[in-house]
Amino acid sequence: MRIGIFGYGNLGRGVERALVRTSSESLFGIFTKRKTQLGRSLSGAPLFDAGDVLRFTGEIDVMINCGSSKSEVPRTTPFLASHFHVVDAFDTHRDVSQHFAKTDAAAKRSGHLALICAGWDPGLFSVARLYEKAFLHGASPVTLWGPGVSQGHSDALRRIPGVLDAVAFTYPREDAEAIISKLPDAERTPERLHRRVCLIAKAEGADAAAIEAQVRAMPGYFAGYETVIRFTDLQTLHKKHGGMPHGGRVISKNTDGESLSFSLKLPSNPDFTGFSLTVFAHALFRLAASGRVGAILPPDIPPTLFLERTEELWNYI
Amino acid sequence: MRIGIFGYGNLGRGVERALVRTSSESLFGIFTKRKTQLGRSLSGAPLFDAGDVLRFTGEIDVMINCGSSKSEVPRTTPFLASHFHVVDAFDTHRDVSQHFAKTDAAAKRSGHLALICAGWDPGLFSVARLYEKAFLHGASPVTLWGPGVSQGHSDALRRIPGVLDAVAFTYPREDAEAIISKLPDAERTPERLHRRVCLIAKAEGADAAAIEAQVRAMPGYFAGYETVIRFTDLQTLHKKHGGMPHGGRVISKNTDGESLSFSLKLPSNPDFTGFSLTVFAHALFRLAASGRVGAILPPDIPPTLFLERTEELWNYI
Repeated sequence: MRIGIFGYGNLGRGVERALVRTSSESLFGIFTKRKTQLGRSLSGAPLFDAGDVLRFTGEIDVMINCGSSKSEVPRTTPFLASHFHVVDAFDTHRDVSQHFAKTDAAAKRSGHLALICAGWDPGLFSVARLYEKAFLHGASPVTLWGPGVSQGHSDALRRIPGVLDAVAFTYPREDAEAIISKLPDAERTPERLHRRVCLIAKAEGADAAAIEAQVRAMPGYFAGYETVIRFTDLQTLHKKHGGMPHGGRVISKNTDGESLSFSLKLPSNPDFTGFSLTVFAHALFRLAASGRVGAILPPDIPPTLFLERTEELWNYI
Repeated sequence: MRIGIFGYGNLGRGVERALVRTSSESLFGIFTKRKTQLGRSLSGAPLFDAGDVLRFTGEIDVMINCGSSKSEVPRTTPFLASHFHVVDAFDTHRDVSQHFAKTDAAAKRSGHLALICAGWDPGLFSVARLYEKAFLHGASPVTLWGPGVSQGHSDALRRIPGVLDAVAFTYPREDAEAIISKLPDAERTPERLHRRVCLIAKAEGADAAAIEAQVRAMPGYFAGYETVIRFTDLQTLHKKHGGMPHGGRVISKNTDGESLSFSLKLPSNPDFTGFSLTVFAHALFRLAASGRVGAILPPDIPPTLFLERTEELWNYI
């Protein structure tokens, strides 16, 4: 199987590292808008101009779209699905059905298979939520994120005037598990279950109080959350908090006292997401071989398709 | 969908209770060898003689086989698969591939679909092991059972002469998680990861020391395990330890410091397994509608098939 990487930021580099470790021979090349600036890839894999991607339609079996969910993937996955089998890690929960519809139409027209939302949330956590909902009578799955660095929230901090750089950490509240057992569904909101910690390096002369006020007022990010804000210098921020650890848990409990839970701990979010994308890409390729076309989601894949060798199945039953 | 229950022990009653709670109209009837003794079912659902099952081939959509994995299911699932779509909770790990082959042949000949091993281990835990193996680079999933009552181990105790009744508890050892990180695969044996506690009510005059010696010597059950043996009276055993709680965990860790884990806690093992069988039965019926025949295992089912209503999918992505 020949894999192309489309987009070469944190996630694209995560996919590259995963392929180098597991099957470097399958890495056909990396497509980026910044070919000229970058010159070469970290692994030495060929670097191509993103604009030239259609010259390789016959040579790439699965394209892994590593672009930004916010600004690129909604447009590039349907485009890529018109010419390749494609996998993305689209992660804007509220826009999933719209992204699915556009991708499905494009993939069906071209006769390709496209898997969207193939990270860990959405992705593996979507699968966990489905299983827990189905098998735990009367329960509604709750998702806890953290402890970890929230990329979207860090980006939101960086957009505030006077902020040089920032990292936003998310933690499940210590009473989160108790809340899950006690509160009705509607009250188990992310705000009740999580707290945020912001580390901010501000420009000299920037007003800390004004920055703090803006942070606390950001709806959908920090407003309504227990939020701790700390200021630090740029050097400390980069040295001590340059990593991208993350984790989380999908928990379900019912009134019979039954519980199911799936949890995950990751020292590097992009490394795990990158590796997951390669696993999903292999499963997609096996499913495409059976003639399936259109858009699919991670829970559309029978778990046996993730096995590299079918004969290994008996070891895991 | 009309469901038949085949076998009316703990598990059959668990399935019956699940159907009564969720969709009593789908319970067609219960087949048992003890129709005459029992007279009627707990829910009032029709009770039939197991020997009459073939009179109902056109009236039952899915048969849930609740017989004993040891003595009945290896024979009755292939038999039932010759006439019905069938689901079982076969749980003898080492004989799964043989049971699969026999069931597959029968189901393919008759044009039915048969799902085997559809409990929680094997079953949901098989699915968890497959996901963890696939998505955690370089890790091998480890399964911890307990705290809970092990039915097979309790039965083994009851077969010892002089034992009136007994309950065997299984606990993960407190250092189990540490062992998973440190020891190589081959050394992470069930004996290293678990301990057993046996509560035994012995007959008057029976030799406690002799019983204890026999327990400790049972290969595959207690030999090699840290085992605590306590004697108690029949009344205490039934009053305080009559329930069948269980639980467990599938854990994977790799040398990068990543970890994935799926865990489950059950106040009543037969109630959860019974409910699971009904969930699997619905998914099987949906898969059968697409024309699939032969034997399948839980990880052959795309998780989206567990949804009752397709339009709910977006809530869980």
